[in-house]
Amino acid sequence: MLTLYYAPHTCSLASHIALEDVGATYELRRIDFKTAQQRSADYLRINAKARVPALATSRGILTETPAMLAFIAQSYPDARLAPLDDAFAFAELQSFNSYLCSAVHVAHAHRMRGYRWADEQSSFDDMKRKVPQSVGACFAVIEASLLKGPWVMGETYTIADPYLFTLAQWLEADGVDISRLPRVIEHRSRMAERASVIKAIAEELAE
Amino acid sequence: MLTLYYAPHTCSLASHIALEDVGATYELRRIDFKTAQQRSADYLRINAKARVPALATSRGILTETPAMLAFIAQSYPDARLAPLDDAFAFAELQSFNSYLCSAVHVAHAHRMRGYRWADEQSSFDDMKRKVPQSVGACFAVIEASLLKGPWVMGETYTIADPYLFTLAQWLEADGVDISRLPRVIEHRSRMAERASVIKAIAEELAE
Repeated sequence: MLTLYYAPHTCSLASHIALEDVGATYELRRIDFKTAQQRSADYLRINAKARVPALATSRGILTETPAMLAFIAQSYPDARLAPLDDAFAFAELQSFNSYLCSAVHVAHAHRMRGYRWADEQSSFDDMKRKVPQSVGACFAVIEASLLKGPWVMGETYTIADPYLFTLAQWLEADGVDISRLPRVIEHRSRMAERASVIKAIAEELAE
Repeated sequence: MLTLYYAPHTCSLASHIALEDVGATYELRRIDFKTAQQRSADYLRINAKARVPALATSRGILTETPAMLAFIAQSYPDARLAPLDDAFAFAELQSFNSYLCSAVHVAHAHRMRGYRWADEQSSFDDMKRKVPQSVGACFAVIEASLLKGPWVMGETYTIADPYLFTLAQWLEADGVDISRLPRVIEHRSRMAERASVIKAIAEELAE
């Protein structure tokens, strides 16, 4: 049995959708950011980094979205969510997901979590003002170069798709001009119609 | 034939070491950051993200260190640089590398590249002041929870080791108190004795 530790409106949605995509049996455990549950002693034993997502498995706990998504794809090979028998294609997929975690998500995080990297209110305000540009620049690279279409890797749906969808949920709140991102927005709409996405979002908002 | 696009003192060293570890045949192409060669039209055709590393292969170009390292390990399975037949162990390895790229490297980047996320000099100064703490906090998690020892994943050397070594090269310049990181520093010293590491560093500094 798998247990996904998640919080609504965070990147844990990507793993949640992927678990639905593969038809996994899993439990959901919501971590309440409003009461800083991610910093509680109980949760720090699950993830010393005090963040979601985390995935408890029979072998132990996994963290970090790109690794969890690859684990889900490898654990359910029949769902074909990654090109597991092609090292180059798998690396292209991992490269995309790595860009999402290290550049896109990081740029977004400067809107609300500037305290990770600075101390002054003036710096937080400056970071917030830059988010439309910094997140926008990342998505411009995705729009122009990385998103092959109709799915991220081309004709085949993979674990990159729920991850891109999850981060693209935040574009409007980040103040990014989405009129410059027609392909990203089309991908987001295509994703929003999938049963796995509808179910995962409904579960997160219902609890 | 593989070609590694690199710059000295950047995270491209991790892939360079891994290519040596597996005994790959490869060419090195230095990208000169002093003349902003990473933003030249020629290099943007190789990596639209204007960063190193990039790895040209017979199938196309790969970017992002965690993906490149996994590709090197999968392309040279006899070198056993990753647990390729164990999805959970592979995910643990990828989780560690994902933390390095999305948290550790990002914290470090605020010392020199604050312009990615802010515009004001006062913000850049504030970010710089926080680097010893933000990078230090990441390495404290590695020291206490993630580095199993003697190698990152335990008894077996993997692609996580050159990556950790590469980022640990920057600790002193980042102002981190290394006296609190005895296990990380011991790992760094152990790595520095390896022939692959000595050769890769010498090649990067010689050109």
